[in-house]
Amino acid sequence: MNVALPISAALDVRDQFPAIAGWHYLDSAVSAQKPQAVIDAITRAYAHDYASVHRGVYQRSADMTLAYEAARARAAEFIGGAADELIFTRGATEAINLVAQVLPKQGRVRVLLSALEHHSNIVPWQLAGYEIDVVPLTADGRIDLDAAEAMISEEHRVVAFAHVSNVLGSVLDVTRAAEIAHSRGALLLLDGCQAAPRVAIDVAASGADFYTYSGHKLYGPTGIGVLWGRKELLDAMPPYQGGGAMIDSVTFERTTFMPPPQRFEAGTPHIVGGIGLKAAIDWVEGIGVERIHAHEAALVAQCREALRTLGGVTLYGPDDSAGIVSFTVEGVHPHDVGTILDDEGVAIRAGHHCAQPLMALLGVPATCRASFAAHSDSGDIEALIAGLRKVKRIFG
Amino acid sequence: MNVALPISAALDVRDQFPAIAGWHYLDSAVSAQKPQAVIDAITRAYAHDYASVHRGVYQRSADMTLAYEAARARAAEFIGGAADELIFTRGATEAINLVAQVLPKQGRVRVLLSALEHHSNIVPWQLAGYEIDVVPLTADGRIDLDAAEAMISEEHRVVAFAHVSNVLGSVLDVTRAAEIAHSRGALLLLDGCQAAPRVAIDVAASGADFYTYSGHKLYGPTGIGVLWGRKELLDAMPPYQGGGAMIDSVTFERTTFMPPPQRFEAGTPHIVGGIGLKAAIDWVEGIGVERIHAHEAALVAQCREALRTLGGVTLYGPDDSAGIVSFTVEGVHPHDVGTILDDEGVAIRAGHHCAQPLMALLGVPATCRASFAAHSDSGDIEALIAGLRKVKRIFG
Repeated sequence: MNVALPISAALDVRDQFPAIAGWHYLDSAVSAQKPQAVIDAITRAYAHDYASVHRGVYQRSADMTLAYEAARARAAEFIGGAADELIFTRGATEAINLVAQVLPKQGRVRVLLSALEHHSNIVPWQLAGYEIDVVPLTADGRIDLDAAEAMISEEHRVVAFAHVSNVLGSVLDVTRAAEIAHSRGALLLLDGCQAAPRVAIDVAASGADFYTYSGHKLYGPTGIGVLWGRKELLDAMPPYQGGGAMIDSVTFERTTFMPPPQRFEAGTPHIVGGIGLKAAIDWVEGIGVERIHAHEAALVAQCREALRTLGGVTLYGPDDSAGIVSFTVEGVHPHDVGTILDDEGVAIRAGHHCAQPLMALLGVPATCRASFAAHSDSGDIEALIAGLRKVKRIFG
Repeated sequence: MNVALPISAALDVRDQFPAIAGWHYLDSAVSAQKPQAVIDAITRAYAHDYASVHRGVYQRSADMTLAYEAARARAAEFIGGAADELIFTRGATEAINLVAQVLPKQGRVRVLLSALEHHSNIVPWQLAGYEIDVVPLTADGRIDLDAAEAMISEEHRVVAFAHVSNVLGSVLDVTRAAEIAHSRGALLLLDGCQAAPRVAIDVAASGADFYTYSGHKLYGPTGIGVLWGRKELLDAMPPYQGGGAMIDSVTFERTTFMPPPQRFEAGTPHIVGGIGLKAAIDWVEGIGVERIHAHEAALVAQCREALRTLGGVTLYGPDDSAGIVSFTVEGVHPHDVGTILDDEGVAIRAGHHCAQPLMALLGVPATCRASFAAHSDSGDIEALIAGLRKVKRIFG
């Protein structure tokens, strides 16, 4: 293993991540580690600036409100949206549940999903009473948009796809997906959890109608995510949860509600989550999503090449996958692979990746998955391959 | 102002709160400041221990899972509940929405609330389609349980009361409230947001069926709260949100779900929120809720006495209110009071406190509210009174 990364793709940010010292963390797709700048922003918010928002008549609370609303603006701008179209949620899961529950169906009771969706983009539609149609995948593991074009109908209210597959790393052609959805008057919702940290997106230009991503996968805090939606769609949606901060006036007989985004943010928000997310976005944009993408693409190429060279490994997904490499080792259960790698200081994920229908399609109960981040480097891949050699020795 | 606190009630923890140095923070009822121990636990979780939970095959993730589940056990034990009855939510608001949305109505379409409820214990029931009956208050601002006893009927599915009023500080007789609810087969849900930091509770002994509190009001992180519910009730409730971690198996045709509490926790949880909440509970129990209650009760007595002595002030709520004093100053809008106090380094809340129906009942658009915490002391009250003297000079 001596495949050097191109100099231009080496980001040299590993030292900014205190929690991975001496450790090969290849599980960023389940949750990203946090750069010191994000940790410091969180600490400062609690230890120096803390106050609640939207309520206090004193200066500290007004300052915190400005900081929280600046985070909203930043989280929107990051994907090309406007601040008043950006709802803070508990995470991407809550975001999709929100849309599934309160978007008026307008007589359309079907959603078009794909075979690679995460459970968080399947179960909410089931719970909301939608009928599901499933777009198949291409041979190399992309959502088959030709098939989607043939399947879309005027019965579909929503087309909901992963922007980047959390298992295969395949990247969606968002603009074409939007055209397909809109060709029959359906809306396009994109699950951007894996895309936000590694693929640039402009929601307005792409034609998407809803976009969601989670903070903790974007180098940010746990417990926060965002739902972006086109203004006129949000305006037409009734509230999801009721409580403080989302109301205009309350009596026991009748309650009126604030306009979006407040209408969808009941209760005291995850204030420090918003502030930490802003710090994470600042950190990512300080590097540039395109550079992170190029860096991870180089690592993916290096990793897939090394796995092929190793032999006895089945690779899933396309060669140009974004930062994520799924594989199985012949004759070894993925959990055993993960456990042995752990002994070697390498963390990967082994499991169904919250995508059981895709596992069924691939004909496996689980896969191993190595996923990269800005801090990943060739040393991580070398350690992975050394660990897999040990796996093969033990099970050989 | 020279009313000394009894020595036994002085907790001497102010130095543990870095964000209030040189500041008189009397707005703990909207959100508590954080002791250093909590901030340190959050920082350590992100900077040293970070991994996702319930998923990884590697040791760090297993350790984080143990820490997160230990937080669940602690959050349950804190109120006398069992770990498998404890659901982590985004906050108390989400907790009440969850119950309102998914508790089977069993043919009963009414809830019994009180006139002092927070919007978060009114609007969720409206959104869920319940008819609301409103228990009046006693002359000194308690929920009138004699009236509740006369009003309860077999049409009521839930009786939902604040354990401690966020405006008046009045403390509910929980055991009697449970007896009243159960006398007609209704369930008792308690909003414990203001109670958790200042009144000891044993949910099992009290007869409550659901209990909720929020982390950020209990010296803990933002973005996390808990819903405790009796096991057999949770078992009978369908999922609220769908996604990862709450499923047993997923196909596009049919999904089966985990038992509680996982069934109600879709998606990656607010891991560090749970860990920070545990640190907050450890901190509170290191002092003892009873001692904090006694400390705040002494401050309330001192504050009410000082406000009466000042004159031109209307006091709301009972004299034995728990840590919260609402008042208005004759001829001065509460917002003006709050703004002038801010100039004097005193933070109070001025507004409707997310309790517009109670404001209507009191016949005011808003009140001033001073609320106490473990770190509060006589100096805070002296500063409040000095500030109010200035208010009276300016508006006199």
